[in-house]
Amino acid sequence: METHILLITCKDYKGLISKVSTVIFENDLNILVMKEFVEEATNSFFMRSELTGALDREKLYKELKDKLPEGADIVINPKQKKDIVLLVTKEHHCLSDLLSRHHFNELDARIHCVIGNHEVLKDYTERFNIPFYYVSHENKSKEQFEKELYDTIAKHKPDYLVLAKFMRILSPDFVAKFNNKIINIHHSFLPAFIGANPYKQAYQRGVKLIGATAHIVNNDLDEGPILVQKVTTVDHTFTAQSMVQAGHEVEASVLAEAMKLVLDDRVFVTGNKTIIFA
Amino acid sequence: METHILLITCKDYKGLISKVSTVIFENDLNILVMKEFVEEATNSFFMRSELTGALDREKLYKELKDKLPEGADIVINPKQKKDIVLLVTKEHHCLSDLLSRHHFNELDARIHCVIGNHEVLKDYTERFNIPFYYVSHENKSKEQFEKELYDTIAKHKPDYLVLAKFMRILSPDFVAKFNNKIINIHHSFLPAFIGANPYKQAYQRGVKLIGATAHIVNNDLDEGPILVQKVTTVDHTFTAQSMVQAGHEVEASVLAEAMKLVLDDRVFVTGNKTIIFA
Amino acid sequence: METHILLITCKDYKGLISKVSTVIFENDLNILVMKEFVEEATNSFFMRSELTGALDREKLYKELKDKLPEGADIVINPKQKKDIVLLVTKEHHCLSDLLSRHHFNELDARIHCVIGNHEVLKDYTERFNIPFYYVSHENKSKEQFEKELYDTIAKHKPDYLVLAKFMRILSPDFVAKFNNKIINIHHSFLPAFIGANPYKQAYQRGVKLIGATAHIVNNDLDEGPILVQKVTTVDHTFTAQSMVQAGHEVEASVLAEAMKLVLDDRVFVTGNKTIIFA
Amino acid sequence: METHILLITCKDYKGLISKVSTVIFENDLNILVMKEFVEEATNSFFMRSELTGALDREKLYKELKDKLPEGADIVINPKQKKDIVLLVTKEHHCLSDLLSRHHFNELDARIHCVIGNHEVLKDYTERFNIPFYYVSHENKSKEQFEKELYDTIAKHKPDYLVLAKFMRILSPDFVAKFNNKIINIHHSFLPAFIGANPYKQAYQRGVKLIGATAHIVNNDLDEGPILVQKVTTVDHTFTAQSMVQAGHEVEASVLAEAMKLVLDDRVFVTGNKTIIFA
Repeated sequence: METHILLITCKDYKGLISKVSTVIFENDLNILVMKEFVEEATNSFFMRSELTGALDREKLYKELKDKLPEGADIVINPKQKKDIVLLVTKEHHCLSDLLSRHHFNELDARIHCVIGNHEVLKDYTERFNIPFYYVSHENKSKEQFEKELYDTIAKHKPDYLVLAKFMRILSPDFVAKFNNKIINIHHSFLPAFIGANPYKQAYQRGVKLIGATAHIVNNDLDEGPILVQKVTTVDHTFTAQSMVQAGHEVEASVLAEAMKLVLDDRVFVTGNKTIIFA
Repeated sequence: METHILLITCKDYKGLISKVSTVIFENDLNILVMKEFVEEATNSFFMRSELTGALDREKLYKELKDKLPEGADIVINPKQKKDIVLLVTKEHHCLSDLLSRHHFNELDARIHCVIGNHEVLKDYTERFNIPFYYVSHENKSKEQFEKELYDTIAKHKPDYLVLAKFMRILSPDFVAKFNNKIINIHHSFLPAFIGANPYKQAYQRGVKLIGATAHIVNNDLDEGPILVQKVTTVDHTFTAQSMVQAGHEVEASVLAEAMKLVLDDRVFVTGNKTIIFA
Repeated sequence: METHILLITCKDYKGLISKVSTVIFENDLNILVMKEFVEEATNSFFMRSELTGALDREKLYKELKDKLPEGADIVINPKQKKDIVLLVTKEHHCLSDLLSRHHFNELDARIHCVIGNHEVLKDYTERFNIPFYYVSHENKSKEQFEKELYDTIAKHKPDYLVLAKFMRILSPDFVAKFNNKIINIHHSFLPAFIGANPYKQAYQRGVKLIGATAHIVNNDLDEGPILVQKVTTVDHTFTAQSMVQAGHEVEASVLAEAMKLVLDDRVFVTGNKTIIFA
Repeated sequence: METHILLITCKDYKGLISKVSTVIFENDLNILVMKEFVEEATNSFFMRSELTGALDREKLYKELKDKLPEGADIVINPKQKKDIVLLVTKEHHCLSDLLSRHHFNELDARIHCVIGNHEVLKDYTERFNIPFYYVSHENKSKEQFEKELYDTIAKHKPDYLVLAKFMRILSPDFVAKFNNKIINIHHSFLPAFIGANPYKQAYQRGVKLIGATAHIVNNDLDEGPILVQKVTTVDHTFTAQSMVQAGHEVEASVLAEAMKLVLDDRVFVTGNKTIIFA
């Protein structure tokens, strides 16, 4: 039997769960899971539910819309694989992890293609029968580079762009075309070590933990809503270079976990934060 | 405004959340949090909700009982401090942690008294103005020892007994008097190292992790439903004795976290497992 | 400049470090790192050192042998890649991780081949230009199966055999041919859940942590000296099957870390334990 | 038999370990543990050793001084309890943890007294028979406040000052009087959230990890050499206030671990970093 994910965001008021669950019941649907959260500061209600049964999408949408307050945001997604495009530069560890999971059908996504601003990961990607497009940033304006990126991506109409260690900063114009649809992995536990060379910064500061952060990209560099963070321990015997190595596993793990959450429709973005029904 | 915790366990069927949330709405109560889980193997539904508003306990109970399937278990608890009694032997680390949290009003419980089968923690306990009762197990039958324990405990009508490193095994008869109301801390990550001297066993096995398990006590030693488990790393430089020291912090942390869950009515017991709405 | 690893095991006595370091100095070698450990129970001394300089292996060996007590075990290895053979069954996650690290030259080993008792990982392995040998266990005696395995392995003269989720139990005779040279990944935090289906056992026990253990294989199943252990949290929403999935990342991580330690000559085996100079 | 800790910092050169260990051997001392580290960037050698035997402190010092390069720093400490003074403000969790460890003789230190710029922890401290001095910062200049602090501290000649959630910033002049002898606990994983209200900053940023950092205090606020860092997970259900609560256990744990390292003479400070022989 088919499963659908129902996502609701609206103003909170008394009786909301009763209303929503009664509409679901009257549509003869079964609630497998239902989770909700009220953000008190903004009086906002967030709900994620998994429903089984013969779901009439338009009917359910209309009936919920009628019961919910003005401005309610309702999303009804069939539980199925999403379409993604990966952007990479030279480092392979996040790409390798995603390609092998994808190859063995463990990622709830179809990887349409990999785009690199360097060519070093082309051979590897193609071993998995995934197309690799080399879009160099060299000798062209950022505008021109991003136009080429966009044209390559647009053909695939992806649900999400995944920056799997893509080391170019994207312009606000580019990001705006994929609102809340770009997932990045930053190689530090943000907000520590924003910007370039976080491991070098970590080395110089003498920290005892290094980490990684998966986040949604918005206009401000390294400032988007955080999805997942993890750390690993280091000590005085680590160089900046060995911190880079030690960080690879955390980075791949954090990105994989973030993608699982996003692909499973478990993430709401509110302001600069995420609400995640794990 | 007062808050109540509503706990429901019953057979699962379609429309359950709609029915429950509608009863709550019709009682003019607000749902702060609502979490549910369906155990597919037994088709059982578990729900925990926090409600605010002028709650008429009997009316709400009756109306829920009418809507829910036969055999439904409904608990409605005001959100307030519970009454507990601690049992200890000689080690202080779990007791110290609980007494200081209690002293600074950070534990959702009233510690009525501490009972020790040794006297070494008496002075320390009394520094916090908590009564300490010394009930020795020596030179008496288990039956007699447990009768004395029971008599000392019974006066306080505790909601929970907390074995904060109490090193005597309690008989099934004793345990039966406090069904699912005894919390124990075992100094290993169960089911590894059941029984005596788990750190010595861990040392001899050469493990690289040691841990602790908080669980509800039932008839079988170290076999009750698990509440919380944590581990910490060790290596070849540890002796059995230094593992004991290293384990203390984990033990205190695990017990404190388990008590928080239990005192906050977040734990359901089903068979030999727990369902925890954290 | 070349680096060598010097490993010494012998009885402990006063002045040992002075003697060893003086021999090293007189050989005009530089000590990059030197770590030692004394196991008090057996009065045994373990030392690992990294040396640079124009090392005359036989001369150094002889001079150390002369200074050290009778029965001293001295190993001098050039710091270089080791030769390994992987054994697999059907699960890909440990293999995938090792193959991608190997492909990008991040593993201090040459993977000579992968041997599977099923054929499902053949295509994947060959994408990395690594030979895959299918040695089925079906319709043959254990003796015959292991003879075929051995014959396939022996041609490659590996330094280590790595059981990357190889689901057949090897006989003591087979294991004896690769003394302390077989690395296994067991999918539980040993000694919990020895034997088959540890995740099912974990599910049935209702644990809140699952884990993995990399260990050296000796005659007793799941009883060999432990190299690395890690855990990850689970809760009541996990089925036995989703625990399997959740465990994959921990398993791959634990095996990768164990291999790094072994390939870097950081592991001593003493009795049923390891001493690891990380 | 008495144990001494030998700490050496000097320029690195070939044969150093041979020279040092030979001096130790010729003094008829036994090396229980010896650990060293070479910081390549500065060609500096750091060594910590635990020695047993009838140690003649002046003789050993002189003989080492003769063998080591000019400018070598040699410290020889008997392994014994150190004298400490605690500074607090209003929060009890770090103080509680240290007082109970101290009470049960588990801290390698004598707590001479607790000084608070508020009086709220006086009663609690005195329950453990530890003197509490109330030195208010109100209605006086920073200079005057710090003079009173200093006068109170100076009588006790402490080896270390421990800021166990002391919420006043100390001036460079004050800090200079206790060079590398002040241990602070900062309630964030530095360098994230430097300054006031780190949990509020963490809440506003929407991080998924919060942490704590124990560090040595130098002139720059929150910029001193880091000793220990740990984190704990949070999610969207946490308020700034519940992050404060969640952080308490990590803070107490981090400070306790840092003090163990410092009290055991395991920490070298080099530039703005620490080298820790754990």
